[in-house]
Amino acid sequence: MAGRARFITFEGIDGSGKSTQARALAERLRAGGHEVVLTREPGGSPGAEEIRRLVLEGDPDRWSAETELLLFTAARRDHLERTIGPALDRGAVVICDRFADSTRVYQGITRGDLRATVDRLHDLMIGREPDLTVILDMAPATGLARAKGRNGSEERFEDFGEALQARSRQGFLDLAAEFPGRCRVVDADRAPDEVARDIARLAEAALA
Amino acid sequence: MAGRARFITFEGIDGSGKSTQARALAERLRAGGHEVVLTREPGGSPGAEEIRRLVLEGDPDRWSAETELLLFTAARRDHLERTIGPALDRGAVVICDRFADSTRVYQGITRGDLRATVDRLHDLMIGREPDLTVILDMAPATGLARAKGRNGSEERFEDFGEALQARSRQGFLDLAAEFPGRCRVVDADRAPDEVARDIARLAEAALA
Repeated sequence: MAGRARFITFEGIDGSGKSTQARALAERLRAGGHEVVLTREPGGSPGAEEIRRLVLEGDPDRWSAETELLLFTAARRDHLERTIGPALDRGAVVICDRFADSTRVYQGITRGDLRATVDRLHDLMIGREPDLTVILDMAPATGLARAKGRNGSEERFEDFGEALQARSRQGFLDLAAEFPGRCRVVDADRAPDEVARDIARLAEAALA
Repeated sequence: MAGRARFITFEGIDGSGKSTQARALAERLRAGGHEVVLTREPGGSPGAEEIRRLVLEGDPDRWSAETELLLFTAARRDHLERTIGPALDRGAVVICDRFADSTRVYQGITRGDLRATVDRLHDLMIGREPDLTVILDMAPATGLARAKGRNGSEERFEDFGEALQARSRQGFLDLAAEFPGRCRVVDADRAPDEVARDIARLAEAALA
């Protein structure tokens, strides 16, 4: 990983602590003098948030895996054009809670069997990879219990149970092996402060 | 054009009479004993109609040409899965007011310069062509005057004036030359009954 890696993504199964750790890293980097844009997918720009609502509200089967893939890609394109791209262009660090790797795992493996299509669509319409991807690794049962304990969560991805969590976890670990240049696996089954310390070290090395 | 062409689309510039002629053909084929599903794009299924609203409402520049292309493709995928495909599978005739050729012209030529991307995305996520495409050809000024005369139209494509209409017309004529197997150009600058008679002849020959 070369220095000046300014586009950092967090990936991992539901309940693995992505949002908490993304926030912690943003605070730390801001304290270190960086301009940081903290964002998330699906969503992250006004248009992408509208698409997010369209996809995540209502009956989970209202969209096929293929249509869902197209809608998430539309949201990502808008997010990239309106939020991520302009921030990177002005020299900010962008920290994003989920990005294309989540699509590779959910639409590519667990929700649909579309990995080849996911890749071709990404190449055609997105074409951008993060500089550093932190994959938070955790036992599926732990992640599930944490995700279920959240109040007001409307993430329908969380309704599929432990078998899905296990397949998703393996999917993220396989991506780490596929993209060793940008992916780092961090054991997330520890106290949040310890996890945050490891992530800060990775990010600061990458930004140096 | 071999017989049993059951997927029929209407294309052409705004104001060229697509909706009127699609309806007239549907009535005629129903009178002849066919089951006919009359539908339109963007839209044509509950999910696709929601995507249509997302794209067509609000500031015309709220989406880039690329994001708009992805949203229309998501709508088309849903429309194909939920409306067009099932109807064709049970032997119905499907008549659709606009389909992929409109995307080739608007996102490919007049709104964006994305024809190569439009084609690759179509091959990847849609992959279906109509059996017969009726291209209603009309002088741009005539189409524009008719489109403007409509009450309650919210088609924002109609806001771009005569130069756009002229480029769109040429785009449709070029598609007719590119896909001579399925496309038929019909002079739409005549009395609607005359136009309808020609279209009925084309459709009945194709269905025979």
